[in-house]
Amino acid sequence: VIVYGRNAVREAVRGPRRVRAIWTTAGAAREFPGAREASAAEIAHRCGSDAHQGVCADVEEYRYADADALLAAPDPVIVALDEVTDPQNLGAVCRTAECAGATGVVLPERRSAEVTPAVCKASAGAVEHLPIARVRNLADFLADAKAAGCWTYGAAAGARTPYRDVDWRGGVVLVLGAEGRGLRPRVAAACDDLVALPLRGRIESLNVSATAAVLMYEILQQRLDAST
Amino acid sequence: VIVYGRNAVREAVRGPRRVRAIWTTAGAAREFPGAREASAAEIAHRCGSDAHQGVCADVEEYRYADADALLAAPDPVIVALDEVTDPQNLGAVCRTAECAGATGVVLPERRSAEVTPAVCKASAGAVEHLPIARVRNLADFLADAKAAGCWTYGAAAGARTPYRDVDWRGGVVLVLGAEGRGLRPRVAAACDDLVALPLRGRIESLNVSATAAVLMYEILQQRLDAST
Repeated sequence: VIVYGRNAVREAVRGPRRVRAIWTTAGAAREFPGAREASAAEIAHRCGSDAHQGVCADVEEYRYADADALLAAPDPVIVALDEVTDPQNLGAVCRTAECAGATGVVLPERRSAEVTPAVCKASAGAVEHLPIARVRNLADFLADAKAAGCWTYGAAAGARTPYRDVDWRGGVVLVLGAEGRGLRPRVAAACDDLVALPLRGRIESLNVSATAAVLMYEILQQRLDAST
Repeated sequence: VIVYGRNAVREAVRGPRRVRAIWTTAGAAREFPGAREASAAEIAHRCGSDAHQGVCADVEEYRYADADALLAAPDPVIVALDEVTDPQNLGAVCRTAECAGATGVVLPERRSAEVTPAVCKASAGAVEHLPIARVRNLADFLADAKAAGCWTYGAAAGARTPYRDVDWRGGVVLVLGAEGRGLRPRVAAACDDLVALPLRGRIESLNVSATAAVLMYEILQQRLDAST
């Protein structure tokens, strides 16, 4: 596949995927020594996007992680996305998950954005380092997570439990739904509890990546506080 | 100006701007009673974007707020963006600011994204309700804010003060820089203190809108805790 964008290509080089070739414009060449020089139009043609920032790379297929391996980590923090189809949102959540030290992200195989080059770019390359697993059925995964000792929390506007009142230590799966629709009933029912962020103002809801950022930093912070 | 996208047009209708006309496709017509029917291609032509979701509207120019009026609010929470040029980021920050109950957003007049139709859409229409002011010089605005009794905090990777250690009650201006570059030295120097979010993982930094979400919810939450 052809990955594009400066952060995305740089992290692909640093990460585990094999990088077969890199093309850059003269302007971006210094950042990627050894790359082949190409015109902006040529790079746009190769990657099929104008958002390439002067660099693209031919990279081995993305390797998904194993969901069971994520659950086997000590006190994992796993973000599960329920039918989030927007690549920008998936990328943004992955970027924040990597920055907040999450164990990994879980996606359903169907009706979900996958790790495409657009997601690599939107994640600023975070997907190269963050384990991302795909599961056939998200509710079944949540059952597995509970059996493995994790607590499962869904984010839902209007839920009774404020997110700050949760004890986020130990193994945790945080389930976030698509914008507008929220969690599917069967997925919400598979959660141990539903949590809400306070909402002020006059619009309907937070973006899923903003919700993810607030919750993941609450989780990280509680763990930092507990370890000092 | 021609605003487009379902949330953006709906909030423009609900907000203070005069809406002169709305065009929708047959598919989106039910949500906008009284709108004129148009083809998707016609709407794309009117708004100059394919991201219109079947609706666009001819709306009066965006009316910026007055920065002094923001400072005159009781215990304001103001988000100041230092040369954030990406419309997606500006829109995302405005959306979260509205949801977290911020008083308003302040932008420099130069080298900053403005409230364009792309920003209206990226904010899900939040800009229609959230006061946004433009100032000639951000460092001067921070001096005014301090004179008005606000504390000014800049977000900076590597700063010594953890964001959770700050007392965020009272009047606060939160200053966020552009991705990659961060705050300009003169702007950072005009802040009372610089605060950092903990960073795990292997990539360079959080997105500015994720940083904004974490900080704005910390501010909201401290105020909620203090009022109970």
